[in-house]
Amino acid sequence: MSLLVVGTVAFDAIETPFGKTDRIVGGAATYISLAASFFYKPVNLVSVVGDDFPAEMLADLAKRGVNQDGLQIRKGEKSFFWSGKYGTDLNSRTTLETQLNVVADFDPVLPESYRKPEYLMLGNLVPDLQFKVIEQLKHKPRLIVMDTMNLWLDIAREAVLRNLRHVDLLMVNDEEARQLSGEYSLVKAAKVIMGMGPDFLIIKKGEHGALLFHGTEVFFAPALPLEEVFDPTGAGDTFAGGFLGYLAGTRDVTYENMKSAVIYGSAMASFVVEKFGPERLLAVKKEEIRNRCRSFLELVQVDINLG
Amino acid sequence: MSLLVVGTVAFDAIETPFGKTDRIVGGAATYISLAASFFYKPVNLVSVVGDDFPAEMLADLAKRGVNQDGLQIRKGEKSFFWSGKYGTDLNSRTTLETQLNVVADFDPVLPESYRKPEYLMLGNLVPDLQFKVIEQLKHKPRLIVMDTMNLWLDIAREAVLRNLRHVDLLMVNDEEARQLSGEYSLVKAAKVIMGMGPDFLIIKKGEHGALLFHGTEVFFAPALPLEEVFDPTGAGDTFAGGFLGYLAGTRDVTYENMKSAVIYGSAMASFVVEKFGPERLLAVKKEEIRNRCRSFLELVQVDINLG
Repeated sequence: MSLLVVGTVAFDAIETPFGKTDRIVGGAATYISLAASFFYKPVNLVSVVGDDFPAEMLADLAKRGVNQDGLQIRKGEKSFFWSGKYGTDLNSRTTLETQLNVVADFDPVLPESYRKPEYLMLGNLVPDLQFKVIEQLKHKPRLIVMDTMNLWLDIAREAVLRNLRHVDLLMVNDEEARQLSGEYSLVKAAKVIMGMGPDFLIIKKGEHGALLFHGTEVFFAPALPLEEVFDPTGAGDTFAGGFLGYLAGTRDVTYENMKSAVIYGSAMASFVVEKFGPERLLAVKKEEIRNRCRSFLELVQVDINLG
Repeated sequence: MSLLVVGTVAFDAIETPFGKTDRIVGGAATYISLAASFFYKPVNLVSVVGDDFPAEMLADLAKRGVNQDGLQIRKGEKSFFWSGKYGTDLNSRTTLETQLNVVADFDPVLPESYRKPEYLMLGNLVPDLQFKVIEQLKHKPRLIVMDTMNLWLDIAREAVLRNLRHVDLLMVNDEEARQLSGEYSLVKAAKVIMGMGPDFLIIKKGEHGALLFHGTEVFFAPALPLEEVFDPTGAGDTFAGGFLGYLAGTRDVTYENMKSAVIYGSAMASFVVEKFGPERLLAVKKEEIRNRCRSFLELVQVDINLG
């Protein structure tokens, strides 16, 4: 009984129109685990860092129920580092620098205790590494969720397609959905992608919300209109963590419950963008999450007379 | 007791990734009147055409309750003509040609019977002409709604600002809201714009839905995810017509009812994009409108447990 998360635990240096950070904690698996831990424990983390990664952050994650038996800490090596710059619209970003460091030869070995997860989140990573995780499982999880990115669609499309035959839910942004499917219309793209394997598809549209597809069903969750989006880094991963954490916490992977999970994921993502890195997320209170979910519901609430 | 609509009645030639039209009927006031007529009659139209404009179209509009006492038909002159081309994403378009023709010296004179409207829609037009309409009114309507465009914000900003002091609701797209306010965040933009005069603001985001602002309140209506958006021309005007027509038909201009009106406007717009020009709108049945509204509600319907 557990939620297994694989992905990077890393450093980011971020520049947005509102400011600039030095090296701060980041990484897909960091955001996913952190967000999921609000809803479900333990979160079993599989990742790799160098010995430059702050012990206090790991201790904080441990306190929150993030099990680190599967986290490799490499002595004398450096953690993955990404630096990027966002344009005014915060939807476009340019990578300034990527240092793979410990991730270059990462081998995601699952400790024995990790091999029967009920829920698996494959954070964005080299598709072959995502697949290695699937291969080590001793039974089929109730739900496997996968993220990916344009880079892998460019250089490792076949590996992505193989993975898709093994996952239940793909979570990508609109551009990735278009690239993967070859269709511009997201409705058409969704049909094509679900034909590749997954029963469910979530298309994240950033400030324009998220769509959940299943068969001929579609659910839309808006993004909350915010005064200020300070730093979008980690928003997608935080959404994923909140989404899957909520499903795990409620032990319900039906489409109906996924709709609620999308709202919870959106709520978590709406916090993380308010400050640089995971800072805001680390300070979130449960009551704030409920209130934020309420705001999402109120945003679309209407009493309409259909005559 | 009437709904007054001012704007262009015109010809368009449109090119989208899916096809190309020769000169077909278009114009802001055409779409607005047509959409509004499903909910409220009479729609008093103020506009100008040449004698090249098809009499059958005018007869059809008349049958639908669009009063043309204020429509000037100029003998030997040509109607306004616009031609444009949409990019793959259908959100960007390039104007290929604009022939002002009869619109060049248009003077929107209101017939005596038009001067006491309850509802006024100022379709996108030279701001000074929009103001001329306001000046001819014999009493203040229950609701004045105004549209405008980037061109007027560039070359006639002061006139737009003057108009804003006289209207109740401004309806613009996201780029126009940003240009008018100087704010990137739509929440901040909304505050700035409502400070310029209007009590209500609608920001249209095309395929990403629409936001209704009033004081500190905000309502969001998604756009329906469609298999195919064939031609977005007229979608914003159709939205406006459906919105104001619904308010007029229900005789209720409260914020709560505006939320329903946004759904009805979105439903009308979701039809018009399915074919070139007003073709699909002309064929819409009342039952289809109700069903489409139901789809909008279902799209965001979720039973969530907030613990």
